Amino acid sequence: MSSDRPVIAVIGGTGPQGSGLALRWAAAGYTVIVGSRSRERAVATANELSALLPGSEITGLDNEAAATAANVVVLTVPWASHRATLEAIAPHLTAKILVDVTVPLVPPKVSEVHLPPEGAAALAARSLVGETVAVVSAFQNVSAQHLKELGHPIDCDVLVTGDDVAAKDTVLRLARDAGCRAFDAGGLANAVAAESLTAVMIALNRRYKARGAGIRLTGLPEDAAEV
Amino acid sequence: MSSDRPVIAVIGGTGPQGSGLALRWAAAGYTVIVGSRSRERAVATANELSALLPGSEITGLDNEAAATAANVVVLTVPWASHRATLEAIAPHLTAKILVDVTVPLVPPKVSEVHLPPEGAAALAARSLVGETVAVVSAFQNVSAQHLKELGHPIDCDVLVTGDDVAAKDTVLRLARDAGCRAFDAGGLANAVAAESLTAVMIALNRRYKARGAGIRLTGLPEDAAEV
Repeated sequence: MSSDRPVIAVIGGTGPQGSGLALRWAAAGYTVIVGSRSRERAVATANELSALLPGSEITGLDNEAAATAANVVVLTVPWASHRATLEAIAPHLTAKILVDVTVPLVPPKVSEVHLPPEGAAALAARSLVGETVAVVSAFQNVSAQHLKELGHPIDCDVLVTGDDVAAKDTVLRLARDAGCRAFDAGGLANAVAAESLTAVMIALNRRYKARGAGIRLTGLPEDAAEV
Repeated sequence: MSSDRPVIAVIGGTGPQGSGLALRWAAAGYTVIVGSRSRERAVATANELSALLPGSEITGLDNEAAATAANVVVLTVPWASHRATLEAIAPHLTAKILVDVTVPLVPPKVSEVHLPPEGAAALAARSLVGETVAVVSAFQNVSAQHLKELGHPIDCDVLVTGDDVAAKDTVLRLARDAGCRAFDAGGLANAVAAESLTAVMIALNRRYKARGAGIRLTGLPEDAAEV
């Protein structure tokens, strides 16, 4: 493991999207920690993922211990758990990168855009964790459906937003190492676009009887996804 | 002109996007009225467009007269003029379709998402015009760049949102007749996705030195753009 490769904690990593991202990062050679409120469930998921990927470095810890042990903390929890989870792990995030994947959907109307008073889940996260944490928003539009099929291409571009350019570059690299095309989509205020698109994707899936609606960006230079 | 083809007014139709859409609809055989605060400027733009398209039915009127004469009223004004323009034309919109194309950008920070207190420009429009008007949101992400090149494909899908299904179907057809792939993206609350994506497109254009960033939807059935 080269020293510039961050250790990644996936908070809420027992769910389909969190565990899928965890597997993809482990497959790319990262040390990955699955976090859960329950250490037992985190360990169980870590063991399942390890079985899919012999030789990988995937462990399970409770959320706070996972955040403590990592350099990059990826938050993949339901919106209803967003605030409480962030309050629990916030003391362990200083000087780290927090990648907020949360979509502020409110069941049962998950095909309708809902945004929090702060404007976006990622902006709510930033106000909760404070200025010492580099908050980056990404991965809201990637369907969990094919993440665990490691050879399966991800037919959806990742919009990465954030106000800390170096942190954003790290997350762009993590997205590409997970097999996604990823783009710098501006400052953290622009997270609202990716967060609201997820409800649109659900609406499109329902309307057109599909399962994995996504987006691709057009009109950009060929090499933009690698810059 | 078959009787089921609406007469279209493009309010703010002297700007690049409004005039481009007007030209495309005229080319598809619709009767199109260019609206402007100034009747003279509306007539001048209508004449310019007619010169590009001999035999077409494009006229110019002031915004209120244009709205009065049309069945479908398309609003393409800067955000700063959104409220005043809607207040002026609202008395002429009863039982019609209002297509809001407005993106609530706030210069000079046009690469940063800004949303109004109502959540989206289209929702603000609905609260201004009242329940007798079918408000549909569309076309925010289509760059004006190639609209006037009639043979040029539009490399961007159109997200059409609205709560009135029949009105939304009319706008889906208008979008396709303008040469766009268009999709039913849910209720009017989902307009926030398309509105916020425009700031992301501007951010992407700046970041990657491009001019016409857009989106394509993926993962939907082949015929979804025609349903």
